Amino acid sequence: MSDRRVGLWLVGALGGVSATAALGLAALRRGLTDTTGLVTATPPFAKVDLDPFDRFVLGGHDIRRGSLTQSVRELHERANVFDETILRACQADLDAWTQNIRPGTVLGSGPAIIKLAELPEAHRAARPREAVEKVQADLRAFREAHRLEQVVVVNVASTEPPCPLDERFTTMAAFGAALDDKRPLPASALYAWAALELGFPYVNFTPSLGASFPAAIELARVKRTVVCGQDGKTGETLLKSVLAPMFAARNLRILSWVGHNIFGNRDGVVLDDPANKASKIRTKDQVIASIVGYKPQTHVSIEYIESLDDWKTAWDHVHFRGFLNTKMILQFIWQGCDSLLAAPLLIDLVRLTALAQRRGETGILGHLACFFKNPMGCQEHDFFRQMALLERYVATLAE
Amino acid sequence: MSDRRVGLWLVGALGGVSATAALGLAALRRGLTDTTGLVTATPPFAKVDLDPFDRFVLGGHDIRRGSLTQSVRELHERANVFDETILRACQADLDAWTQNIRPGTVLGSGPAIIKLAELPEAHRAARPREAVEKVQADLRAFREAHRLEQVVVVNVASTEPPCPLDERFTTMAAFGAALDDKRPLPASALYAWAALELGFPYVNFTPSLGASFPAAIELARVKRTVVCGQDGKTGETLLKSVLAPMFAARNLRILSWVGHNIFGNRDGVVLDDPANKASKIRTKDQVIASIVGYKPQTHVSIEYIESLDDWKTAWDHVHFRGFLNTKMILQFIWQGCDSLLAAPLLIDLVRLTALAQRRGETGILGHLACFFKNPMGCQEHDFFRQMALLERYVATLAE
Amino acid sequence: MSDRRVGLWLVGALGGVSATAALGLAALRRGLTDTTGLVTATPPFAKVDLDPFDRFVLGGHDIRRGSLTQSVRELHERANVFDETILRACQADLDAWTQNIRPGTVLGSGPAIIKLAELPEAHRAARPREAVEKVQADLRAFREAHRLEQVVVVNVASTEPPCPLDERFTTMAAFGAALDDKRPLPASALYAWAALELGFPYVNFTPSLGASFPAAIELARVKRTVVCGQDGKTGETLLKSVLAPMFAARNLRILSWVGHNIFGNRDGVVLDDPANKASKIRTKDQVIASIVGYKPQTHVSIEYIESLDDWKTAWDHVHFRGFLNTKMILQFIWQGCDSLLAAPLLIDLVRLTALAQRRGETGILGHLACFFKNPMGCQEHDFFRQMALLERYVATLAE
Amino acid sequence: MSDRRVGLWLVGALGGVSATAALGLAALRRGLTDTTGLVTATPPFAKVDLDPFDRFVLGGHDIRRGSLTQSVRELHERANVFDETILRACQADLDAWTQNIRPGTVLGSGPAIIKLAELPEAHRAARPREAVEKVQADLRAFREAHRLEQVVVVNVASTEPPCPLDERFTTMAAFGAALDDKRPLPASALYAWAALELGFPYVNFTPSLGASFPAAIELARVKRTVVCGQDGKTGETLLKSVLAPMFAARNLRILSWVGHNIFGNRDGVVLDDPANKASKIRTKDQVIASIVGYKPQTHVSIEYIESLDDWKTAWDHVHFRGFLNTKMILQFIWQGCDSLLAAPLLIDLVRLTALAQRRGETGILGHLACFFKNPMGCQEHDFFRQMALLERYVATLAE
Repeated sequence: MSDRRVGLWLVGALGGVSATAALGLAALRRGLTDTTGLVTATPPFAKVDLDPFDRFVLGGHDIRRGSLTQSVRELHERANVFDETILRACQADLDAWTQNIRPGTVLGSGPAIIKLAELPEAHRAARPREAVEKVQADLRAFREAHRLEQVVVVNVASTEPPCPLDERFTTMAAFGAALDDKRPLPASALYAWAALELGFPYVNFTPSLGASFPAAIELARVKRTVVCGQDGKTGETLLKSVLAPMFAARNLRILSWVGHNIFGNRDGVVLDDPANKASKIRTKDQVIASIVGYKPQTHVSIEYIESLDDWKTAWDHVHFRGFLNTKMILQFIWQGCDSLLAAPLLIDLVRLTALAQRRGETGILGHLACFFKNPMGCQEHDFFRQMALLERYVATLAE
Repeated sequence: MSDRRVGLWLVGALGGVSATAALGLAALRRGLTDTTGLVTATPPFAKVDLDPFDRFVLGGHDIRRGSLTQSVRELHERANVFDETILRACQADLDAWTQNIRPGTVLGSGPAIIKLAELPEAHRAARPREAVEKVQADLRAFREAHRLEQVVVVNVASTEPPCPLDERFTTMAAFGAALDDKRPLPASALYAWAALELGFPYVNFTPSLGASFPAAIELARVKRTVVCGQDGKTGETLLKSVLAPMFAARNLRILSWVGHNIFGNRDGVVLDDPANKASKIRTKDQVIASIVGYKPQTHVSIEYIESLDDWKTAWDHVHFRGFLNTKMILQFIWQGCDSLLAAPLLIDLVRLTALAQRRGETGILGHLACFFKNPMGCQEHDFFRQMALLERYVATLAE
Repeated sequence: MSDRRVGLWLVGALGGVSATAALGLAALRRGLTDTTGLVTATPPFAKVDLDPFDRFVLGGHDIRRGSLTQSVRELHERANVFDETILRACQADLDAWTQNIRPGTVLGSGPAIIKLAELPEAHRAARPREAVEKVQADLRAFREAHRLEQVVVVNVASTEPPCPLDERFTTMAAFGAALDDKRPLPASALYAWAALELGFPYVNFTPSLGASFPAAIELARVKRTVVCGQDGKTGETLLKSVLAPMFAARNLRILSWVGHNIFGNRDGVVLDDPANKASKIRTKDQVIASIVGYKPQTHVSIEYIESLDDWKTAWDHVHFRGFLNTKMILQFIWQGCDSLLAAPLLIDLVRLTALAQRRGETGILGHLACFFKNPMGCQEHDFFRQMALLERYVATLAE
Repeated sequence: MSDRRVGLWLVGALGGVSATAALGLAALRRGLTDTTGLVTATPPFAKVDLDPFDRFVLGGHDIRRGSLTQSVRELHERANVFDETILRACQADLDAWTQNIRPGTVLGSGPAIIKLAELPEAHRAARPREAVEKVQADLRAFREAHRLEQVVVVNVASTEPPCPLDERFTTMAAFGAALDDKRPLPASALYAWAALELGFPYVNFTPSLGASFPAAIELARVKRTVVCGQDGKTGETLLKSVLAPMFAARNLRILSWVGHNIFGNRDGVVLDDPANKASKIRTKDQVIASIVGYKPQTHVSIEYIESLDDWKTAWDHVHFRGFLNTKMILQFIWQGCDSLLAAPLLIDLVRLTALAQRRGETGILGHLACFFKNPMGCQEHDFFRQMALLERYVATLAE
């Protein structure tokens, strides 16, 4: 048992979240940092059979050149995070894992992402099927080279434009046929399909499509694997899902909720494209109405401000009406470092997903809703009700 | 049943919260305003046998001259709240209820409150027993004049200095003896004693002592009545009890939590006295450590800024540590009108307290913890866990 | 001299700024309010021969039905401003001035404004010349009916889309010819032309074109009258022009300046149209670079949030670099009532413009730059340098 | 001329400001950083004969053990400032300058500072005269060892409690006599006296007394040297002196101005003592009334919050009244790193003070008011009027 090894395959392996997760796992296994930020390190999880940090081997796809070390160094210099000591102590791990990174595909990613692709191989696939097969070959080689018992595939690539679901997405058969078609399919769906077909769990940390369509969920069940997503709930939306229930409980009427987000990392460059931004805003904007049961005026904006780099800053202005028609205001300002908020959640999700697969669960893991802006298999957006779901799940494990 | 009448006796009847509750009840019974702000008007309470708004008769004690109409007019002019139309339509009710206001006692209120007393009668009692008997005479006369089935006594008077509990507070017998002694007892405890001895429910909306001592709770049980308190959770502390659980759930380490409160109503004048302010800060400052299970550095200040009048403005700065030792910041600014936030909760509490007494409950109503900064009979400060307590109670009623 | 009467002609007479200016003038002449908010009531102006408040007669154009009383009542109810006492005492004045309001023209206003027009007369003019003549007829009738020595025309209508200047705007002759052409001209330019041709001063309180083109300035000189503008500097931009010089003086490098504005009055409805918003953002966005001498990343957004009504709320996030490459942050939140900030400046401008014309000045009044986001005849955006210009002008008057 | 060397003697040499100034000078002379943050590097100073950065030799007094390298490393680790590259490249300079640091005196510093003293020598002096002579011996040795043409003494030690001025401070003779007395004198005054008696310029960057008494100014004139102070204007007070003039110019009535400051560096530990804090709040609190000409309610608080370290965070809430009695709000949040804001101003002051002495100026340098919260020899607090004073001085130099 102690020899069991679990693969963590990162789609978007050189991005800030991936690099931070890699550095974090290296630092945790070396005892150089504590478990702050990890939900799975809180008391309710104390007796759960989660994989320890030294069990993971990392690999992944990316469409850019570079290395994990370069990515963490860049974050260190631009966003002023990470201690020099930890960076040095973990470099060997990062360099070893960088060897497991393979060229990804941009087929169906949309023009904003395609612009970022530096590797010629990223552009090679002509039809979706080809791209899927290439991904699967990489995944199999990873599993074999490191003798991995499980491989969890996580999407942390840049956000794609929204993709309307047509009949191709409805069944395994229809999607299988579409893979041989020339009509483009979103890259995130191709990666998800590749993973699930191999029976690998798939975690979608982004608002891109990923496995959020009936055919993929059918495939997960058939292949006895699990999926969860969409879009990690790290900052402003987390606060929305925490504060909106307070207004509901106190019967204070939300008149308008304006959220203005600014940040300047590579994700921001992609989100500067209106098509890609639309995906993001969609998942951010539904939370409030879903919780309070009516639709106040909401406005969400996301702007790319280069100087902020990874420091996602949000100003939210909540205008609400209290007793006897009195208008009042709550404002908050969130200054959080995006990669550092996301990375521990990614590690949590990988641990919980690997566990679920080992336990024989299949399909959507709805009990992981608290991690996502737009949870699959769960209509609940109230953060504490979502937490209660997770706690009930954990309690079941203990029985 | 439709003829049943319930008395609402306000200690501090001419203050902003009382006057707003009076105006609100008048407006609600006349259909001039909606139930925004009332917890008991939310769906979970739909089938609970709560008193409708036209069932209440108001009266109370105060140590100042004035009328409910004057108090609401003053709030209207200084804090820019209430519609002219509602003010006019409700004036007759306010004038009728003003007839039920009697001079209170300042015995044991502390110098900051005594300074505010305008009525010579307020100073008359020489020993605690006399003050209690005077209060009881007023309460009995109120019940009889209006043929009330229940009278709920609510403390909304200005905050007293903290009162260390000695042996006099431990048993009914000891407190009974102390009433005949010359040593002062807190005025709020005298009012509470007067109410409970008559079998009237007692709600403590302030951080003053009220019924929060063993002898009073014993008395409540013996007289088959109920108590709840302390200190209505209306604004900044509500937010603390909503946000701290988020940090705990996400394993984000709170390094420091600074809360700076400014406001300028009459309560503020009293809180400008350091002794009285100490009571308030004590109840505001314990919430976070209780929720997260460790003691971050906290600072709470309350300053009297005249121009703000009833608009309590709070700036909170939460410094926290995330993954890989990264410090991040959440700040919020709350701009709420204190009386308008408190008054509907007061109405909620009166309805829920009268109900509990009718159902035969006695002693502390721990299920009302969500309404208080420092809940009696309940160690839970997490707002949503407190709400869950209340919801479970309501669910029991429906059975 | 004491009998001299000055006309104040408001284009957009039923808007919030106009209505507030009307109420303010009525209240000032009746001694019901003090001069807070009026720059011309500060000490440097003590000995300047400005028109007293009881000298003004109001009239104007609008494309909507209504009255000044309705407009101020609407502001009172929606934005919670103005005392009932003042509203009642001033109603007679407002009603009298409402008699002087005439249907305006929407010719060349752009679709967002045309949608608001309720009066059939507003749509009548076929060619620019007709519209100008109609406006002039109204202006002449106003002057004669009230025996006015001067009439100052002020543009406070909703913001038009930007208008690229072609050869028609270069000379009096060219513009004169264009008036007979079918090609549309911006409505604001037609009003300005109408006023100047009659020798009336023209104040442009909006970012619309108004008199900001060579032909109009030539006309002003020829007709011995004066112009000033554009776009009253009331809130967020005022702060930019105050704070940017501090960063420059201290050699702190501004990396990015994000300004997010939300508000919900009728101007906001028009600004919700991207074309009209473009004009506004243009004048708001040039201030910083002009002051600091380099171009930091800037972002200005304006969103229509209905619940805020006239309360323009701005959040500005200034990211700057200090010594040894250290990034720091200044944020501000401005909660100002737009009409109440603008109206006293409008009164200031009318007084100063009427004075300038009486003194024989002609053309652009560059010394009024401190009142405008995009000052005509002045490249200076630093607020205190602009104020110094005005103070030097006033000092000259005293000599 | 190129061989001229200027000494910079720092009282409080191991504090954050000193250490940052040292690192900054080392980095500037090596071309490793740009001049951002230095006022004397802006265009108006381009032709002024200021000492280049490589001309300075550093030394100083401190009462703690340590080195400049330790101090900058501590700041680097705790406040997350300074690049590793610069730290390494400058270490040799810091080590060399650390050799020039001598044990200071705590005589008359007050108990909060005395507690920090680690060096036994700091406690040695029995009478003020002894302390002065010890300081002068160190200063003379510094000048001789490095063959310095000028030595500027700068006070950046922790803030002392306020010191009421009695007759001892009125004349050189009286102060001379008091030096031989047993009654304590503030340490800052002893350092100032020591410097001035040697003819060295003295800059007081703190709110402590320093040279701000008639006898010291007389001494400066007699010894043909210069003084300036008090209390570097780096953050919140700078903003007050920038924003208050805007309210005055626009005739907006400030009702209340609340400033809440939090930070956690060593200065904060000393300011946690109410006596020392009183000095600081006094200089911070006078600015507004002095600028607007009336006294709005003001509140300034400073709290020690350890986790913030050198990041001084201020929340200011400005409540003001506009036209027609309308209350509005401006809030700002300042997140600045104190040492990084102060250090370049310290370098500016040393350059300008050395220049003034070379030019033969004596006594108070009133033209440096813009650098100070409580400027000596100048009643002006408006930042831009203060800047104009400095610009006029610089213009004079050019003539």
